[in-house]
Amino acid sequence: MKRVERIGVSLDKNLLSMFDELIAKRGYQSRSEAIRDLIRQQLSAERTSNPKAKAVAAVFLVYDHHSTKLAEKLIGLQHSHLLQAISSLHVHLDEHDCLEIIVLRGCVGEINAMAENLLSLKDVKLGRINLVATEPTQD
Amino acid sequence: MKRVERIGVSLDKNLLSMFDELIAKRGYQSRSEAIRDLIRQQLSAERTSNPKAKAVAAVFLVYDHHSTKLAEKLIGLQHSHLLQAISSLHVHLDEHDCLEIIVLRGCVGEINAMAENLLSLKDVKLGRINLVATEPTQD
Amino acid sequence: MKRVERIGVSLDKNLLSMFDELIAKRGYQSRSEAIRDLIRQQLSAERTSNPKAKAVAAVFLVYDHHSTKLAEKLIGLQHSHLLQAISSLHVHLDEHDCLEIIVLRGCVGEINAMAENLLSLKDVKLGRINLVATEPTQD
Amino acid sequence: MKRVERIGVSLDKNLLSMFDELIAKRGYQSRSEAIRDLIRQQLSAERTSNPKAKAVAAVFLVYDHHSTKLAEKLIGLQHSHLLQAISSLHVHLDEHDCLEIIVLRGCVGEINAMAENLLSLKDVKLGRINLVATEPTQD
Repeated sequence: MKRVERIGVSLDKNLLSMFDELIAKRGYQSRSEAIRDLIRQQLSAERTSNPKAKAVAAVFLVYDHHSTKLAEKLIGLQHSHLLQAISSLHVHLDEHDCLEIIVLRGCVGEINAMAENLLSLKDVKLGRINLVATEPTQD
Repeated sequence: MKRVERIGVSLDKNLLSMFDELIAKRGYQSRSEAIRDLIRQQLSAERTSNPKAKAVAAVFLVYDHHSTKLAEKLIGLQHSHLLQAISSLHVHLDEHDCLEIIVLRGCVGEINAMAENLLSLKDVKLGRINLVATEPTQD
Repeated sequence: MKRVERIGVSLDKNLLSMFDELIAKRGYQSRSEAIRDLIRQQLSAERTSNPKAKAVAAVFLVYDHHSTKLAEKLIGLQHSHLLQAISSLHVHLDEHDCLEIIVLRGCVGEINAMAENLLSLKDVKLGRINLVATEPTQD
Repeated sequence: MKRVERIGVSLDKNLLSMFDELIAKRGYQSRSEAIRDLIRQQLSAERTSNPKAKAVAAVFLVYDHHSTKLAEKLIGLQHSHLLQAISSLHVHLDEHDCLEIIVLRGCVGEINAMAENLLSLKDVKLGRINLVATEPTQD
């Protein structure tokens, strides 16, 4: 069961009214929810800057699907021993290009090293990597 | 058939040797491939800063899967008329949390507006959006 | 005189303890101060995404100071009518290169347009722009 | 004297025409200049991700100038032994706030650690850090 705590935050009236306006525009239902999101984003950014932190990553690649060699290399990378591929999603963008999203687990440092390799593959036109640090269990 | 052109680029010897070192480390097989990637990244960044440009986006959400209301809202958003959801991928992170990746098409502006809404939903713990501008066909 | 308000924020005990750990590491003296900074950063990011918002910008340029033409162009830009240059700082990096920081006021859109122009100047080797939205007065 | 080399880059006709359009819009006078800038940006990003690389940083702080304690702490930090402050620029934003830009030299890791400390100081409302890796001399 999750235990909820309540803390007090003091802030300038002007700052509060600008914050209220922003979160209303974004559709938040409460200040607490908006502040929790800010905190989670900061924690995630902090953790994913540590090469040894555990993370889940979504690797995004746009590539020409006529490249059969690339498809083989991608499968090889997904079976590499350092990183554990969880699943992948393949989307046809147009007659030439596909978007492939590969979700994998591993350490931040290993994931980043692999991302550099993926981006350098011939026929990979664009690539990005999104890291989400997996929350350390603290029970 | 793709027509390939060849251009000449003049650059300082020092700059070239540092570039060669970097691309070797990243695994590129040729300077042309590395320079094409730099050009594509810049073009994509340029296009995704235009709210009216067409793009494919991968929305990345971490949420508590016990929240049944959220799942309903996500499905509702995927069926909204402005954006065309293409497919989605659902990954179980741990006993509480899921990662959902939703791939959709639309205009950059609409996608960003939707992303702000998604991020503000209760029980969405973390969210990111990745835009890939779809290349304008120029034939 | 600044009026301070106090709001309550409820959050999960785990999330709170991770946040406390992070802000201790960063040297914050109170949770309120850390949360105020998060709110200000979000507000600033929001405002600087609006091309019409007023902002102060610091433009950073690394360039070869042997380029006398560039120095003339920089001065010309600082006197352009759209943007109001406030001051600038010049640092000698090594025998070839200087770092020039130009602080100016203007609208976000005009500043970004100028930044693209500056970056494209011959002999400008690296450039960045930092925007700080100037707070709307709400009195 | 700088030695200039000329390399050939092959790329798709479509990609080239989109690149030409972008660099014309940005005001570049030649493809070589635009490609050199892309290469330099990538090299700088690479170097500033290495905690031990030498860098010049511009630290950007917005703070309430009524805070005399802060001014003392900033001066103290500029005289810390790890980082060598080169110069600083102070701008009055409005009746409350100042913008202070501090230029310093040091290792990337030390600069980032200091930046976290600065951002956490009471009365610092906003802060950013811009790193420019200083080019390794290769003569």
